[in-house]
Amino acid sequence: MDKVGRYEYVAESFHCDFTHRLFMGHLGNHLLNAADCHSAARGFGMPKLTPIRKTWVLARLVIEMTEMPQQYSHFVVETWIESVMRLFTNRNFRISDGETGRTLGYGRSVWALIDTDTRQPQDITEAADGAIMPWVVADRQCPIGTPSRVKVSSGAELVSVVSVKYSDIDVNGHVNSVKYIEHVLDLFDTDWFAGRDLQRIDIAYVAESRYGDRLALYEEQTGDGSRNISITKQTADGDEAEVCRCRVIFNTSTN
Amino acid sequence: MDKVGRYEYVAESFHCDFTHRLFMGHLGNHLLNAADCHSAARGFGMPKLTPIRKTWVLARLVIEMTEMPQQYSHFVVETWIESVMRLFTNRNFRISDGETGRTLGYGRSVWALIDTDTRQPQDITEAADGAIMPWVVADRQCPIGTPSRVKVSSGAELVSVVSVKYSDIDVNGHVNSVKYIEHVLDLFDTDWFAGRDLQRIDIAYVAESRYGDRLALYEEQTGDGSRNISITKQTADGDEAEVCRCRVIFNTSTN
Repeated sequence: MDKVGRYEYVAESFHCDFTHRLFMGHLGNHLLNAADCHSAARGFGMPKLTPIRKTWVLARLVIEMTEMPQQYSHFVVETWIESVMRLFTNRNFRISDGETGRTLGYGRSVWALIDTDTRQPQDITEAADGAIMPWVVADRQCPIGTPSRVKVSSGAELVSVVSVKYSDIDVNGHVNSVKYIEHVLDLFDTDWFAGRDLQRIDIAYVAESRYGDRLALYEEQTGDGSRNISITKQTADGDEAEVCRCRVIFNTSTN
Repeated sequence: MDKVGRYEYVAESFHCDFTHRLFMGHLGNHLLNAADCHSAARGFGMPKLTPIRKTWVLARLVIEMTEMPQQYSHFVVETWIESVMRLFTNRNFRISDGETGRTLGYGRSVWALIDTDTRQPQDITEAADGAIMPWVVADRQCPIGTPSRVKVSSGAELVSVVSVKYSDIDVNGHVNSVKYIEHVLDLFDTDWFAGRDLQRIDIAYVAESRYGDRLALYEEQTGDGSRNISITKQTADGDEAEVCRCRVIFNTSTN
């Protein structure tokens, strides 16, 4: 089996936004699904880990696109393991046009492995008898910047509050990582998207949130034109804790 | 080309809910995408209609499932045109297990055709030189009840208000038909879904809603155990008008 996984998708109409391009949320879910299938097929995924009470946890995700798949177009997601350290592994993605092979963008992600009982991080190099180790592809390029260190100051403005609902909860029982991206993009109106391309999104996951939590989004503009957003959870007993930090960078639209 | 379209999908992890079964919203989008691809490939879909300023409008959708696709399972959506009248066409769906062929459920839908300039209904039998007519499959069974006439009385209780955001808007520039289903299912908490299967959903679309509208959900319990929900839109100038009516029927879970 090839060390690089290759998954073919179609930008179906009802996965596209009003500009007739794939929603970033749907692309994000395709990347997570590709990662899930790639690891499962190679013996270090959830079917192997669930019985031994371990699970992958997404720590960081970056997606940088030069163009988004257009409605009806075929596109390909390739994914591979760039490196494995004791507590983290780097997984990369390439998104390309299904007909021409033209690169549309790249992704980077960082994952930890935890014990589902103790929630403690595990040694990835040793888990499941080191099942991930033969799959490292050290020599394949991923020509986008590594995950940015997103900072959000205490002066950031509260711009939205959303309650976690049934549709937000994934197979792991907490809020789907991509839902935070959707909540961030929903801060912008349709006029904004009509004139701009989402060039890059960086997201750092700090904690999990669950059904019944209230998510508060705090936004800050930066000097370089990006928007930084911190999302906190307010639990039923009134505590507030950060769950993720996100940076989005838009370009003037080429569409 | 076969009159019946056949589309294969996988219930990928990040399209499944916390019970490890496909979200009804994702299934609904798959049905709409299957309808879109089926009509496009046979010459009566959007690529043919957009240039002549016509578009399909979903009037009713019913999905009735005996079981939902489980995480990682392959499933198949078949779709065909049951009948064509002057102002409406009936399109059916069968959802089956990709390995065994076992039926998982069925769907029914009713579509109108409108002129995108005048918004007036068009004669489907004559549109695009009657392109849909050769594709009718009159003799294939769809053994679920036809769309129910959902009634919601004026005594229904206001249970939720949601603002229409960027992620809700589809390629047609208005709220995606399936988003209403998600908003309805988000009325129920995770404990509810842990003990029940969604057996059937009926939805009748009355009007379109757009970016900036506020959607109000009014719910009513009925004697037969179903829940009826009316969704209205409150526009920026304060008007309130119904956009859809929905009935959901749950069974005690077999999961």
